[in-house]
Amino acid sequence: MQLSKIGEFGLIKLLQTKCAACSNDVLAGIGDDAAVVKVIGNKFLITSDMMLEGVHFDLSFTTFYQLGYKFMAINISDILAMGGNPKHFLISLGIPETYKLSDIEELYSGIKKIADEFGVSVVGGDTCASKHDLTLSGTLTGSAKRIITRSGAREGDGIFVTDTLGDSAMGWHLLRKRKRKIRSFSPPSHRLKLMKKHLMPQPAPLKSRSKITSMIDISDGLLIDLTHICDQSRVGAIIYRDKIPVSGELEITAKNLKKDPVRFALNGGEDYVLLFTGPRNYKTDAFKIGEVIRRGHFIVDSKGRKTTFKPEGYEHFKEKLKIKDKKLKLIHS
Amino acid sequence: MQLSKIGEFGLIKLLQTKCAACSNDVLAGIGDDAAVVKVIGNKFLITSDMMLEGVHFDLSFTTFYQLGYKFMAINISDILAMGGNPKHFLISLGIPETYKLSDIEELYSGIKKIADEFGVSVVGGDTCASKHDLTLSGTLTGSAKRIITRSGAREGDGIFVTDTLGDSAMGWHLLRKRKRKIRSFSPPSHRLKLMKKHLMPQPAPLKSRSKITSMIDISDGLLIDLTHICDQSRVGAIIYRDKIPVSGELEITAKNLKKDPVRFALNGGEDYVLLFTGPRNYKTDAFKIGEVIRRGHFIVDSKGRKTTFKPEGYEHFKEKLKIKDKKLKLIHS
Repeated sequence: MQLSKIGEFGLIKLLQTKCAACSNDVLAGIGDDAAVVKVIGNKFLITSDMMLEGVHFDLSFTTFYQLGYKFMAINISDILAMGGNPKHFLISLGIPETYKLSDIEELYSGIKKIADEFGVSVVGGDTCASKHDLTLSGTLTGSAKRIITRSGAREGDGIFVTDTLGDSAMGWHLLRKRKRKIRSFSPPSHRLKLMKKHLMPQPAPLKSRSKITSMIDISDGLLIDLTHICDQSRVGAIIYRDKIPVSGELEITAKNLKKDPVRFALNGGEDYVLLFTGPRNYKTDAFKIGEVIRRGHFIVDSKGRKTTFKPEGYEHFKEKLKIKDKKLKLIHS
Repeated sequence: MQLSKIGEFGLIKLLQTKCAACSNDVLAGIGDDAAVVKVIGNKFLITSDMMLEGVHFDLSFTTFYQLGYKFMAINISDILAMGGNPKHFLISLGIPETYKLSDIEELYSGIKKIADEFGVSVVGGDTCASKHDLTLSGTLTGSAKRIITRSGAREGDGIFVTDTLGDSAMGWHLLRKRKRKIRSFSPPSHRLKLMKKHLMPQPAPLKSRSKITSMIDISDGLLIDLTHICDQSRVGAIIYRDKIPVSGELEITAKNLKKDPVRFALNGGEDYVLLFTGPRNYKTDAFKIGEVIRRGHFIVDSKGRKTTFKPEGYEHFKEKLKIKDKKLKLIHS
């Protein structure tokens, strides 16, 4: 069914049913000029993220379900990175008129899936027709007893990451190869796992965060996000190449491609893994990858050689957009 | 200067300076994964609005300053329509790479102007490169002692609007005529006033709102927005054509164009005037235009003839997009 059949108000009614917030901290949800929500304590967290077709996603790579899931996931990741618990979500959509109603329903199913996992209520937003591309913009609130910013890292702290890095970047690399019909030689199960890490990142909160001094989620790449912590905490960092955690799938696939897996982990981005600093002997499931120092950014290789690193990673406006073609057959659908 | 010169992080730093929130209810603003804000009481209002180039605005009509102003204004209007006071704003921007830095600075100046008027702090958002069009998405929070929804209208209530209607729709009509180089014959000062009402709407809170039973802001058009109140309150409405307030400028301009000014007021939309219900003899500066009845939607003309009205106004996906050409000379710049 085309969207023009039900119109904007029909769509809003449908979303109201689909996303009906049953949480008792939602006093008024979708359907008024604004939502009304309850808050614990007297402060809250709030973050916005935007995803644009042809820039952040390619509909020949992803299903609408995966897209909705990822969109919610990256917003959740921002709240987790502040030490918070995600609460209320508003989603604004600019939808090309040619899109089918079922596409949008699928998108919302993906959003709803991860929203339910994290106890997030969808409380509002805006829906409108767009001229060219699908546009997603979301705002998520969160509560937190103790808020962890980027600015509390202290000299002598350890630097930690909560999961392996680089899978998402390799996944993206593989998706682009598949689109261009270039064969890959790593096992299909490895390829699927890496691609899924890119298409449906799984944010996870830290279990214990009492002694953490600073935190950020890795969205632009380890080096660039570590530099954000350093800048805002006015400190430096040293990291050990050998200690950067990479998955077996990434290691094998990179080897087959004659590429260095650690480069994907250092600069890849879109991991949505937490990067934090804390006591150097902090007992944690996370991987310790380095230490906070007074100044400078250094990386130590397997032979103990220390070099300065420059923050590399994705920055809007500075890079040529890599995804050019817009309308391609949906491989996943 | 092109945006590619300073990049995304340069732009964020600039916006941080430009929008530095000095309000003491902002514990952490732009520059972390999420903003941290204080709230009065244990609940708050939250609303999102999206504006897309070629759908909601045409850069051959508006300056970036006016666009920023209007974008903030329509979000403020949503909070006022709930009986709230606007507080914290997050803005997400998708910016074509060819845009100049000065365009974005101008946009933020417009946002900042009206944000300051209403005591709103800009606390965060997202900036990214877009492939085609300028995309604006905003989220505004608000506080309210007593929240006024769309669902409280009762049979016997009066129906009120806080200002004249239809100026914005006529302003848009004139802007389109000017773009197509069609001469208009009404006085230039009238034309300018009407166009300004479209380009820079001025939301205004109600002074006294203690006895109001329901409220909405007129964004889609009087009839369609009144129908929203009726639907959600499960009531009907009767309005009097003669009592719909229209400005002298609209009346004269419509006459010159051989058009009915009241039609602009009934269906035009984008007025950002408050429509509310309350006691039928409510003492207020607002204009009483009708009454809440048990069921049905009626309009009474100057001769006392009563006819049913259908909700007309703007609805996304249901209408052909009227603005086709994207890149035109900026008349205002």
